[in-house]
Amino acid sequence: MHDPYLIISSDCHAGLPTEEYRPYLDARFHRAFDEFLGQRDARRAEATRLGIRNDAFAERWFRDHEEGLRGGWDPAQRIKELDGDGVAAEVVFPDADAVDSGTAAPFGVGLGLSGDHDPELGMAGARAHNRWLADFVSAHPERHCGVALLPVTAETGQVVAEIHRARESGLGALMIPAMWGGNAPYHDRRYDPVWAAAAECAMPVLTHSGSSPRQEYGDHLGIFVSEVTWWPARPLWFLLWSGVFERHPGLRFGVAESGCWWLPNLLWFMDRLYLGAHGGKKLSPFAALKRPPHEYLDRQVFVCATNTKRRELAQRYEIGVDNILWGSDFPHPEGTWPDTRGWLKKTFHDIPVAETRRMLGLSAAETFGFDTAALAPLARRIGPTPAGLGQPADQPGVEASWARSREVGRHWLTDHDFPVLGAQLEQEGRTAR
Amino acid sequence: MHDPYLIISSDCHAGLPTEEYRPYLDARFHRAFDEFLGQRDARRAEATRLGIRNDAFAERWFRDHEEGLRGGWDPAQRIKELDGDGVAAEVVFPDADAVDSGTAAPFGVGLGLSGDHDPELGMAGARAHNRWLADFVSAHPERHCGVALLPVTAETGQVVAEIHRARESGLGALMIPAMWGGNAPYHDRRYDPVWAAAAECAMPVLTHSGSSPRQEYGDHLGIFVSEVTWWPARPLWFLLWSGVFERHPGLRFGVAESGCWWLPNLLWFMDRLYLGAHGGKKLSPFAALKRPPHEYLDRQVFVCATNTKRRELAQRYEIGVDNILWGSDFPHPEGTWPDTRGWLKKTFHDIPVAETRRMLGLSAAETFGFDTAALAPLARRIGPTPAGLGQPADQPGVEASWARSREVGRHWLTDHDFPVLGAQLEQEGRTAR
Repeated sequence: MHDPYLIISSDCHAGLPTEEYRPYLDARFHRAFDEFLGQRDARRAEATRLGIRNDAFAERWFRDHEEGLRGGWDPAQRIKELDGDGVAAEVVFPDADAVDSGTAAPFGVGLGLSGDHDPELGMAGARAHNRWLADFVSAHPERHCGVALLPVTAETGQVVAEIHRARESGLGALMIPAMWGGNAPYHDRRYDPVWAAAAECAMPVLTHSGSSPRQEYGDHLGIFVSEVTWWPARPLWFLLWSGVFERHPGLRFGVAESGCWWLPNLLWFMDRLYLGAHGGKKLSPFAALKRPPHEYLDRQVFVCATNTKRRELAQRYEIGVDNILWGSDFPHPEGTWPDTRGWLKKTFHDIPVAETRRMLGLSAAETFGFDTAALAPLARRIGPTPAGLGQPADQPGVEASWARSREVGRHWLTDHDFPVLGAQLEQEGRTAR
Repeated sequence: MHDPYLIISSDCHAGLPTEEYRPYLDARFHRAFDEFLGQRDARRAEATRLGIRNDAFAERWFRDHEEGLRGGWDPAQRIKELDGDGVAAEVVFPDADAVDSGTAAPFGVGLGLSGDHDPELGMAGARAHNRWLADFVSAHPERHCGVALLPVTAETGQVVAEIHRARESGLGALMIPAMWGGNAPYHDRRYDPVWAAAAECAMPVLTHSGSSPRQEYGDHLGIFVSEVTWWPARPLWFLLWSGVFERHPGLRFGVAESGCWWLPNLLWFMDRLYLGAHGGKKLSPFAALKRPPHEYLDRQVFVCATNTKRRELAQRYEIGVDNILWGSDFPHPEGTWPDTRGWLKKTFHDIPVAETRRMLGLSAAETFGFDTAALAPLARRIGPTPAGLGQPADQPGVEASWARSREVGRHWLTDHDFPVLGAQLEQEGRTAR
């Protein structure tokens, strides 16, 4: 109860103020870069129109967090903020500034990375960010896993070369566009060399929420938010059903900052489809798979679920406890920084300590290859303890309160009928009756 | 317990063998129609390639159900099949033959209705089907609500005229394409006259599963099935966030044959977004709405959930019991026909009788305007009884077993923390302990 947590945020962001990317960008792209910089105001106006950006909020946010926000690109400040939050290590996505896009990667290939980007500009912008990011994480390599931007729809040879270059430079994961645009969808065999290289380099491939067909939304923010988590999840079933996980058992794929509330239904739906088809038919339409979807999921897929909701944690035995990776989203305002400790207490107080350790850090360590031994002394110094999160000393009691939920698990696989919603934890239920 | 159910299937299908639509089609489209007929084999080969169609299954299906399947277009045979299933009335979508597409509406504007259809051909095909359907339902108008095909992306004046024509001809609902293709999305004000006309005619507007961006799927059936229910649901949040339900309080909108398992998460997500934004902000980005999303949903939205799954029924207090409309999907092989009685017993045996009555018929009667008094004698003759579905005589006990689940309801609105998954019904839980 007094052994501090090793906390690894699976979803953080860093990026240079955009104009400072210039030295990292090949000189022949400087003119295009100046044009891109010139369009900044137009992009900010567009975000304001859609309601993603709010003037009053932006002003307050930058005033109240001026010093901490420099941690978006200043390594020393960043360490200070991570320590303050009790976060020992982190996975570093692009675009530190989610309010004004002041740190957008060149040509918008950060969170806005799209399959429709001009292949040459897209690759140039990605390389610029990747070069800077390699420098950025080198100060404390044990604490950061840098996510390289990978415009995967560009020419395959170039894409594969960038994977190896990124790995050699010290980066640890790869972000691909959630949307392939007018290019070949991710079931296409043309991407096989990419998946193979990612597996060979032990670099997890990720999508991150951000891109979506905004041109369809008019100025209706609600539409955007209602489906912005669907687009990054979509590649998951394209990869799965086309046998990518079967052909590349070393590949790991993750979906970041899109929650995990959608995963139980998807898994239930896909498993039933696969298992049902195998029931009575000689020839399966799912020949690309050798096992049911949940087995690939547990073996190769994870979710960087960011600030996990209580409703999601309640579904963790369907999702798979080990598949949920918590994240602070530092330094984005929708994240838990700078009050991660308070937030964790409110959210995890009745979750078993052993499961909390997995979701807050150990699963991320395995997925992204963090050195837990190297991080242990730091975690002991800065990490909150179970007692600090309000988790009861009576852990057998806490475990018991979830026993029924754990036993039912994925009910479609455990021969349970279905889970009744609305019950409370056992100990509470007993009191109520 | 011995008062039979009034059963209304909110999702059935009827359509002429395609070539027989000729007399219902304006003569100037006959040449285009012949071309369309000529492409039938190619379409069937494509369905077989994608795995939607299976030769061996098709042969067996048509051999075993030859007589009943004629109910797809023969009114007398249809009545016989409905009676056999205990179904008093039905909502009639297009495309009776889901195996070989032998009854596809002209130019594929049935379940394949798309915003990208040629506006002229699309409207011609829709009118042909609508004319035939009006004839078809006229034999027993109290038992059928015919769904008119509405290529809503065509010229607005024509679309509005077709709504009125369809209503006058005896049809009762409108199916719009799930996907608008390259046309204006459904938040666009250009559709306001359409929504107004639908409300004025008291014709619910529906999408039905079927269309999806198949060109992106390669030959991977699993991808298709994993997202085929998302596309028809998508217009729901376009209509909702753009204020269509606020501006047209008389409009009713439904999503057919896409399940309802996705609705609780969507509602939770949308409500939190709206209510959170209203918490601290003076100017809401959701000015088009005057109330939280769930209020529009309960007032104007429903799901034709077809053969409801046990997992979905467990979530009915989040979805809203009155929003779930059961359907048999007759005469599609993925439906419950010809063993609807057996299927209902297996699925509803522990659901309270009062709620079962709503989901199996009364909600559909209100939504689509069926005359329950006129149907009552028929229902008494053919409907299964609660006892026949295995529902216990001790209904207070059954109600009590769901009391906690009902009380928590939509937990984000009832100040409950979250529902624990995996608990069993109270009486079972008591035994287990």
